[in-house]
Amino acid sequence: MRATVLYGPRDVRFEERDAPAVINPTDAVLRLSVTCVCGSDLWRYRGIQPVDKPTPMGHEYCGLVEEVGSAVTSVKPGQFVIGSFFASDNTCAACRIGYQSSCQQRELVGGAQAPLLRVPLADGTLVATPGIPPDELIPSLLTLSDVMGTGWFAAEAASVKPGKTVVVVGDGAVGLLGVLAARQMGSERVIAMSRHKTRQNLAREFGATDIVSERGEEGVGRIRELTNGVGADSVLECVGTQEAMMQAIRSTRPGGHVGYVGVPHGVELNGQELFFAHVHLHGGPAPVRRFLPELIDLVWNRKIYPGKVFDLSLPLEQVAEGYRAMDERRAIKVLLRP
Amino acid sequence: MRATVLYGPRDVRFEERDAPAVINPTDAVLRLSVTCVCGSDLWRYRGIQPVDKPTPMGHEYCGLVEEVGSAVTSVKPGQFVIGSFFASDNTCAACRIGYQSSCQQRELVGGAQAPLLRVPLADGTLVATPGIPPDELIPSLLTLSDVMGTGWFAAEAASVKPGKTVVVVGDGAVGLLGVLAARQMGSERVIAMSRHKTRQNLAREFGATDIVSERGEEGVGRIRELTNGVGADSVLECVGTQEAMMQAIRSTRPGGHVGYVGVPHGVELNGQELFFAHVHLHGGPAPVRRFLPELIDLVWNRKIYPGKVFDLSLPLEQVAEGYRAMDERRAIKVLLRP
Repeated sequence: MRATVLYGPRDVRFEERDAPAVINPTDAVLRLSVTCVCGSDLWRYRGIQPVDKPTPMGHEYCGLVEEVGSAVTSVKPGQFVIGSFFASDNTCAACRIGYQSSCQQRELVGGAQAPLLRVPLADGTLVATPGIPPDELIPSLLTLSDVMGTGWFAAEAASVKPGKTVVVVGDGAVGLLGVLAARQMGSERVIAMSRHKTRQNLAREFGATDIVSERGEEGVGRIRELTNGVGADSVLECVGTQEAMMQAIRSTRPGGHVGYVGVPHGVELNGQELFFAHVHLHGGPAPVRRFLPELIDLVWNRKIYPGKVFDLSLPLEQVAEGYRAMDERRAIKVLLRP
Repeated sequence: MRATVLYGPRDVRFEERDAPAVINPTDAVLRLSVTCVCGSDLWRYRGIQPVDKPTPMGHEYCGLVEEVGSAVTSVKPGQFVIGSFFASDNTCAACRIGYQSSCQQRELVGGAQAPLLRVPLADGTLVATPGIPPDELIPSLLTLSDVMGTGWFAAEAASVKPGKTVVVVGDGAVGLLGVLAARQMGSERVIAMSRHKTRQNLAREFGATDIVSERGEEGVGRIRELTNGVGADSVLECVGTQEAMMQAIRSTRPGGHVGYVGVPHGVELNGQELFFAHVHLHGGPAPVRRFLPELIDLVWNRKIYPGKVFDLSLPLEQVAEGYRAMDERRAIKVLLRP
């Protein structure tokens, strides 16, 4: 098969690789219906995170089970399934309390920008949809593998509650789906921080009530103006930079909650500032597995359409153009069709 | 009157100063029944935090109202009252959500190691006891002004719940009262980290079920051994150093909670480590005012005896010896009698 491999900064190749096969009895191999490029892939694409060796890319996936190992009992060939970017056993102490992305056996899924994918710990990782989905639902189902689950976790980690005021820092696909999650959880006011017209529009479509285009201290000042001088109840940090993190913390009211899901790159938090900010801080790699049943249900019943974040769709073989489009912010998120 | 002034590292003087008087119509002046030395006073005593000018010391207090300003309506002369180290209006947006130590009008109370004390924002700050307390309750009531309220907040910030496993980092008075708070809130297992026999004993008296004397990575290893390899549900950080903070974070299970109340000195948190630790982090200056009614009730009805942390009692004029005894860890906490 041909699949996506990153050789170094901006060097994405679509090249011949061995097709994956069942290695461990707990594995499954999927034939992917669709896959995509993740904002977090750009850290390596841009050289911010080093690429030591040619790396098969992609960790968002959904599709049909092609083959399962001898120990797999909960999914079977022919089913349409979705799983998280972290494979998890779903039985260890961390999984049982809903933190499957800290599973004691966790394994990063890699190489999903390809037609076929091996998923370890298939029983713990994969969730089947109620049936074979109609085509128009597939992009939305794909988002549940990471980006929607991550936006959802950001809102949950920020303790979004009905009637509350929420700020979302970051207008990438995760931030935009954080807006959707916050509204779905009943928040009254959702302030999206964005300076890009197309992203502002999608934020509004997902339920944002206000848009703030200022950043940094100016952005914090605007949020304070909009919240009677105290700051927001819940703030979702969906970027991962020092600036975004401080903007999130400083936009939160005393006793409020920051949910952070952007993988921190170079972020250092000063203990004393955090102490006097009086905020709750929670985040990390989203335990997507926990949310899959609920989110599949919402998509299946057409309550949410997170697939709208895909504003560019390409054949998988044009994956390099997909990376370019996201890097240059010409596209919010790129869907790839094998 | 004679009162306590810190001139520089280890230079505590008990000297003549003007007696405080009502300055603003919202002030009250108290005649203090008892006062004490706080662990946080030691940061300046030890020169870790600079002392720019001679500084009246002390911020923990309880006693009889001597005089009130013309705008004060909720307390009156002759009542026995307790207040927080932060004066607060108890009406602003931050106060209304229970974060009085982030009150928009907050003012640090200072100069309480003295016979008389001016308390600003008396209506918002002071809470009267049901009557004049018997002598034996007064040390316990004094702790509600800071150290007990701070231990209580640590437990609350760490989301201590019935049946859970709690770790307390720090065996100062705040940590020991964190043990008491965690037990009072129903936790099943409370692991106190301490290597000092007298403090271990008091921790057990306050309800600790286990003692861990190792520190740093070794301490973290012991906690993991005691918690099936996953870490504790709730960890109270009651020190404020980098080592203590990291020990707390690394002792917490994924999805668990760290409540931190030690004023951070030189603490820097690495964003990526925090991200993958998957913990909830909350803390700051304790909103003692929020807890006063409940804690007064518990002391008044002899349900808790936080005053046991005072293992040395001195006449106020010997305050310098009080600082020495705490600095050298000869005393856990020093009660001062004006």
